Parts: sequence; C-alpha cells; structure tokens
Amino acid sequence: MSAAAGWDVRLARAWLSRAVEPGSVDVWRFVQRVGPVDAHRALRRGEAPPAVQALVGKRAAEDVSADDLLRAERCGARLVVPEDDEWPALTLHCLTLAAHDIPVERRDQPDRTQALVPPLALWVRGDRGLDELVDRSVALVGSRASTAYGEHVAAELAHGLGERGWTIVSGGAFGIDAAAHRGALAAGAPTVAVLACGVDRAYPHSHSALFHRVLEEGLLVSEWPPGCAPLRHRFLVRNRLIAALTRGTVVVEAAARSGALATGKRARDLGRQVMALPGPVTSAMSVGCHELLRDTERQVTLVTTAAEVLQQVGRLGADLADPAARPGSALDSLSDVARRVLDACPVRTGVPPERLATIAGCEVVDVLRVLPVLELHDLVEWTGTGWRVTPPDRPRGRRPR
Amino acid sequence: MSAAAGWDVRLARAWLSRAVEPGSVDVWRFVQRVGPVDAHRALRRGEAPPAVQALVGKRAAEDVSADDLLRAERCGARLVVPEDDEWPALTLHCLTLAAHDIPVERRDQPDRTQALVPPLALWVRGDRGLDELVDRSVALVGSRASTAYGEHVAAELAHGLGERGWTIVSGGAFGIDAAAHRGALAAGAPTVAVLACGVDRAYPHSHSALFHRVLEEGLLVSEWPPGCAPLRHRFLVRNRLIAALTRGTVVVEAAARSGALATGKRARDLGRQVMALPGPVTSAMSVGCHELLRDTERQVTLVTTAAEVLQQVGRLGADLADPAARPGSALDSLSDVARRVLDACPVRTGVPPERLATIAGCEVVDVLRVLPVLELHDLVEWTGTGWRVTPPDRPRGRRPR
Repeated sequence: MSAAAGWDVRLARAWLSRAVEPGSVDVWRFVQRVGPVDAHRALRRGEAPPAVQALVGKRAAEDVSADDLLRAERCGARLVVPEDDEWPALTLHCLTLAAHDIPVERRDQPDRTQALVPPLALWVRGDRGLDELVDRSVALVGSRASTAYGEHVAAELAHGLGERGWTIVSGGAFGIDAAAHRGALAAGAPTVAVLACGVDRAYPHSHSALFHRVLEEGLLVSEWPPGCAPLRHRFLVRNRLIAALTRGTVVVEAAARSGALATGKRARDLGRQVMALPGPVTSAMSVGCHELLRDTERQVTLVTTAAEVLQQVGRLGADLADPAARPGSALDSLSDVARRVLDACPVRTGVPPERLATIAGCEVVDVLRVLPVLELHDLVEWTGTGWRVTPPDRPRGRRPR
Repeated sequence: MSAAAGWDVRLARAWLSRAVEPGSVDVWRFVQRVGPVDAHRALRRGEAPPAVQALVGKRAAEDVSADDLLRAERCGARLVVPEDDEWPALTLHCLTLAAHDIPVERRDQPDRTQALVPPLALWVRGDRGLDELVDRSVALVGSRASTAYGEHVAAELAHGLGERGWTIVSGGAFGIDAAAHRGALAAGAPTVAVLACGVDRAYPHSHSALFHRVLEEGLLVSEWPPGCAPLRHRFLVRNRLIAALTRGTVVVEAAARSGALATGKRARDLGRQVMALPGPVTSAMSVGCHELLRDTERQVTLVTTAAEVLQQVGRLGADLADPAARPGSALDSLSDVARRVLDACPVRTGVPPERLATIAGCEVVDVLRVLPVLELHDLVEWTGTGWRVTPPDRPRGRRPR
C-alpha cells in the first residue's frame, strides 16, 4: 500500500511551486528546516527570513494553489511531493547531497540556473508511477538544431534502450529530444518528458501529438504548475532534473557551448555517468560531443550503441541492484567503495562527504554514489551537518516515512 | 660534416637486409653483439649461433648485396645504416628499448610480426635526410576501404599539419594513406611513405604517380631491398616502423580489428601518442576508432583538427625540444618525470626500465619516453643489462659515434 502526503502538505507545496522559482537553495533549506506547511504560512504572512521572503516577493500575496491542483486534475496530472511514496527519493538523493555543499552566504552561491537543488514538488501527468519509471532510466539530450544523423542515432539508441526495459528521459524540444521519444515509443517503451512549462501546455505546440503519445505509456513532468510559460531561464533550471532523475546522460549531438553540454556537466557533478556519441568531425553539431570526449578530467565515455550505454549505467546499477532481495546480507552486497565509505563514517558527529572521501581513499563522487545505498540499508544517517553510522539501537531495514 | 659508415659495414647490412626478414630479435641481438661485418661473415660461413643461422637458412648461400646497392643507386635510393649520421637514432631509440624487454627464450618471444625490434638498415629513396624529416612527424594511418568522409578528413588533417611544418608519415596504400599524402603534398609539405616492398617498386601500381610526387619533397622508406615484393606479413612488420618513426599516430578510419589499429597499438607500446578521429557511429569504417577511444586504459586521445594533434605531440615535443640550445642547463630543462627517472638510476649496476618506473613512481612508458632525453644529455647510459647514471669522469655532451 502506498503512502501519500496529507492535503495540507500538498496544498503548501503546490503554493510553493508557484510562489518560488525552483533552484533556490535558501528556500529549499528553509522548507527543509520548518516543513512545507510552516514555510507556506510564514511566507504568506511575510514572516520568513528576509532573504527567503525576498525570493517570493509579491507572489506571497497570491494563492491559487487549490486552483492549480484542480487544473492539474482536469488534465490528468497530480502533484507529487517528497512526502509521497511515489517521490523518487533515492534517485533525487544526489541533489540533496549536492545542495548540502552549496555555501550559506548568498554571494558564494552559484546562480539559480546552475545550482544543484532538489525540487520542492513535481507536477506529473500520466498514469505510471514516477519513482517506478525513473528507476532504470537514461537521459538522452542534444541539440534542437540536430542533423538527420543525430536524429537517426538518437532514435536508434532510444529504441535499443527501450527494448531492454529502460526508460528514456529527455526534454520536449525539437531535434534530439523528439527523436529520442519517438525511438523509445516505437519500441513500445515508456518515456518521461521533463518540461520547463506547465504539464498542461504543449510546447512546442507542434509536439502536442508527440506528448499525447508520451502520455500513453509515460509521463510529462515539470516543477512549474499548470499554465506556466516556458521561460528561457527555466530550461536551464530544468536541465539539472533531467540529469538527476536518470542513471546517466548521453549527449547525442551538441554544438559548442550548448545546453545539452550543460546537462552533461550537471550529470557529472551529481556523480552520474556522462556519455557522448561521436559524429563526423565536419559536423558543427558534433563539436560539443567531441569537446566533452576530449576533456579527460570529466571522464566522459564514448558510446555508440545501447549496449555500450548499459555497460556504463549498469556498473552503477550493480551497486544499487535489488537491495530488497537480500535484506539480511546488506553488508555482503556492498561494493568495495561502499564498504570503505561505511568504515570511514564516524559513530557520533557526522562528517561531510569530502571528509569521507579523504578517509576512505576515494573520490567525492564515489562517496556521493554509495551514500544512498548505505542509507537505504540504514547503515548511515544524515545528522543535519554530516554523515555518521546509524546508532546500533535503531532497527535495521527500510525506515518508515 | 656528416659521418657515414664504411663500405664494409654498408655491404654487410645490405646483405643482412635481404638475408633476414626484419623483426627477429635474435638476429638483431647477434648483430648488436658482434657487429654487422662479423655477423655477415659468420652467417655466410654458417658459423652463427644455430638459432640465428636457422633464421637465415638458405639465403646464407646467396649474396647480391653489391647488386642491391647498385640497383638502389639507379633509382635514386641509398641504404641508411645505424652507423650513419643520417640514421634517426634518437627517434628509433624507443625500439631499442622495447627490444631489450623481449625475452631471450624463443618460446617466450612475440611473433615476428608483433615484435618491437629496430631495423637493421633502411633503404631510403629521395633527396631529403631521413633523420631531419622524421624529427617532427606524425603518422596518419587508416583503412584502405576508406569512406569519402575519412579521405576528406585525412587530407584536411595532413594539410593542416604540413602547413605547420610537420612531416606526414604513412604507408603507400589506397584510402587513408593516399589521402594523407595528397593532403600534405597540397600544402607543399614533405611526406614519408614507409613501404612493405622495395623502394623501386610502386605498390599499388596505380600509386606510381603519387609516389613520384612524394619523392619530390619527401622519401620512400623500406626495410626490404630493391625488388622485394609486398608480402602480406611484411605490412604487419612494417607497421612498427611507422609508429616508431613518428611522435604520434593518428588513426583516421579503421574497421574493427584493422591493421591501422595494430599500428596504433604499436605506437602506444612504444610510448608514443595515440590519437583517433571519430566519425559517424553508423559507419563501419569508424568502429575501430571508436573502439580505441572507448578503451580508457590505452589513453587514446580524440582529435578533430591538426591543432589538436599538435597539442598531443607537442607535449612530447616539450621534453625533446632543442637540447642543443642550452647545453649547460641540461638538468634545468628536464621534465619532472625525467628528473625522477634520473634520480632513480643507480650509479653502478644498470637496472631495467621496469625497475626505474617502480623507483621513480611512474609508468614504464614514461621511463621509455624520457630515457632518450637523459641519454642525449649524457646523464644516463646503457650498460648492456640496464640503465645507470653516466660515471662523472665521462665528459658531458653529445657522445662521439
């Protein structure tokens, strides 16, 4: 039986999703600290900390959250909140970890379009469960101004991944996004389109038929409530979600300095696999992919087939594979890195991932990759300031929500 | 004034080049030990060690070396031997080092087509000096069954490298080889074609016009004397020379398991830079390149332009750059790795490169890369069994030959 959040929580988060532009770490921290209901109340009354209140501004006076929820219902959508069982908590854990690393001082913080901050809520349209669909998913991203080559290869790749039971996650744009959806749909596989506007809007308009096909098997997802417009900066904010919701991101075609490259960079920062598909060196649309592949520090893997993509995300999958299947042998199933990180965790005072990486003798991204597994097994816990081993008096097993 | 070997040495090596198929480490070691003149005499009389004598077999009874030298002269060719100043000693040093690592026991030795053994002599046709031409050179290799894309890109790359004063080294085959020569020649740059047959033979025949254009500015080079046929196995033996003569090898187009990949592997084993050019994933002729680029252990760099190629070989160049310019500051000009390897060298008993790598804390390929520099500065010397620092009573500076 699945648990769902109460009406007050859902209403509060619906309000927050319209009042605050996503990507603000200060707002996210405030909501984490006082809870969504109190955060909503304080912001409505103008009693939130000034820095947070300023981010809401005049929107504090408005409240159309009940209308938004109704409007969503009318188009077959719902608001999924972190308090719901459907929330892909383990998948999005990477954003929680990344957000903890963002400095407190505003002047030291990255731009909102760059910040790796978890979503406060997600508007989801479609019948399938969000957590279930993104569990084994790969992002295919690329240029809107794609070539016939890029579209062909994106569709082939999506088809191959779909056939093997993987979900394709992408945006809803022309070019590579659309080709990826079409390829997966042709294999009868579900896809998730993460939009930068309300899930009731078809943007671009000519993709309304495509979105309807996506909805038959998959989902439209957005951080913005119904009716919201696809503003330019929202695409940049949205990109982190595509990276975070998937086990890996494949950049199919990208010009130099394109948005797809930014998504690839986000995926890397979140400890996800980043892959790029090569193309003719004579094609401007492959310049970005080749740039990624030349950057040896970023560890971007060249992929040419669906099997090669799975070789990459499969490795990560080995760490996350089926923890429920062997509940009594949590320690046995851990990878070498996971064991070292567990051994590095202190008993009392929590320490940040950087410190764990130093003690365990691995990269920070490795620590961020294995912490969700350790947490899932209830072997470690977040103290609010750092990670420590779960005290032994606490029962082991999946924690109640 | 350049020094040249005596007639007896040249005649002996001419004889050896016909009597022994290149790539045999036992023959090379025998010639190194007793010298070419005595080696020639012993083999002619059937008095060489049985293992070596067996490799010459019936050819011991024949002697057409004077004819070969005459035949070479008639077509504007000459025999360049290690005793000549024109011999690219520093460049080919990597093969000497690699040969030292080949086991003594025949059963432990690699196949002759795989063995990294220095040539006993090189037949060179053309006016330019071999050492001078290969000093700043890059190998472009690839499939005979190339696509229009591959040929276009090979020609562009060769043109760009030629414009920047670099020599292109390749084979003489159809496809990528020919496109590389043509691209460089169009830039008025010299090229070197390393053949698997006599330098008086145009193989393939339809390339005779191309070879004549190569000869105007560059060279035809072969280990086999005039008239020799391009036997299949000779191409494999030849590939190590293309890798060894250049600072780096670029694989432009290659099917899976192609000969171009083998050349790339040789280059890597010799501590040279290996680069690969990507192409459409839909092209069978790019599968080999993508395979190379996916193999993270081999450290193959993706390149798309001549500038990117120079970025790779330039690094190596920095280590080798103009040692003559600052004779008094040999130690200052050394790279960090070179310094560590020098510090790792013992004073008395020489040690093999593997041991140096362990002490210096670097890879064996790094050791093999810096040893020629250290030797050039007379900082280290080969004792016959290993490397040690040059005794202080020996004068520093370029050793007399």
